[in-house]
Amino acid sequence: MRIRKINAVIAALIAIAIPTIIFAGPLSKDVPPDGVIAVPKNYDTEWVLLGTWSIADKEKAGAEGFHVVYTQPKTVAYFRENGEFPDGAILVKELRKTNTTQLTTGTVSWGSEITGWFVMIKDKKGRFTDNPLWGDGWGWAYFNFGEPNKTTTQNYRTECIGCHIPAKGDDWIYVRGYPILTRK
Amino acid sequence: MRIRKINAVIAALIAIAIPTIIFAGPLSKDVPPDGVIAVPKNYDTEWVLLGTWSIADKEKAGAEGFHVVYTQPKTVAYFRENGEFPDGAILVKELRKTNTTQLTTGTVSWGSEITGWFVMIKDKKGRFTDNPLWGDGWGWAYFNFGEPNKTTTQNYRTECIGCHIPAKGDDWIYVRGYPILTRK
Repeated sequence: MRIRKINAVIAALIAIAIPTIIFAGPLSKDVPPDGVIAVPKNYDTEWVLLGTWSIADKEKAGAEGFHVVYTQPKTVAYFRENGEFPDGAILVKELRKTNTTQLTTGTVSWGSEITGWFVMIKDKKGRFTDNPLWGDGWGWAYFNFGEPNKTTTQNYRTECIGCHIPAKGDDWIYVRGYPILTRK
Repeated sequence: MRIRKINAVIAALIAIAIPTIIFAGPLSKDVPPDGVIAVPKNYDTEWVLLGTWSIADKEKAGAEGFHVVYTQPKTVAYFRENGEFPDGAILVKELRKTNTTQLTTGTVSWGSEITGWFVMIKDKKGRFTDNPLWGDGWGWAYFNFGEPNKTTTQNYRTECIGCHIPAKGDDWIYVRGYPILTRK
């Protein structure tokens, strides 16, 4: 009987532990140990929408592009608790083309195919001082669609950070577009 | 020893069964048994982004509103497999205000506060023939922000379906804006 009880306790622990390991692992493990940045698999079906951006068409009404930004569920929970991104937070920004048409709502644009991704990975420890894709607290990389493992960017200082200067006070991230981070 | 083996098998089965029950339950249970439609809790942190829409500002460059649409992860998996929405599929469409500014990318708009939600629930069985919020295979309802349990709509035929006529051939849903449903 005693063995049965012990085994029942083990069974219960396994039942609790497996989902916990899968769904509540620490985020620091999401920093690639070798500093090689890639587009995470299944971010679009397993992660949370942070926010969306549209870029106005220069010639006619409507949007010429969308930026759609995702992060891990744990990053949202951590930010709500602590007011900052955790070590290992990953932001994936899809670049999407658009289509535009007239509907009852007005001139409506919607995101169509993805053309590329920007990926940022929070690094609070300054792990990769010799890697020009890492610095200022983040890893920074761009990928063309279809090549999620091969960044085309060489140096975040010349190719990435310039567009983030208006967001420097928010750890380089445009959190103004991500109200989910502060919603309770 | 034999008891231990049996118990080990039971432990393994429990470990597999618990996540399965939690994460793979049938979607039909998501149809409210009484036909009362509400905005699902935590759709924004636990569900999948289906797609985003922008409505062009009539007076100046940029978007005056965003529609951001979510569904359950299981609905995406089912649609990819079967090419149609499952019974119990729920679509939540946030209506968001926007802000617009000039950034290096151009005239950029981003979603800010939510003003309301449209909710649709797939009903393949025609459950609620006497309820004017249900019909044509769906439940249809609108909610003002802050009142996720109190729909303001009375009749989907006069208040909802009109805007969906261009999508009638796709089961009333603008699937053209949801490439995730057909992506592998």
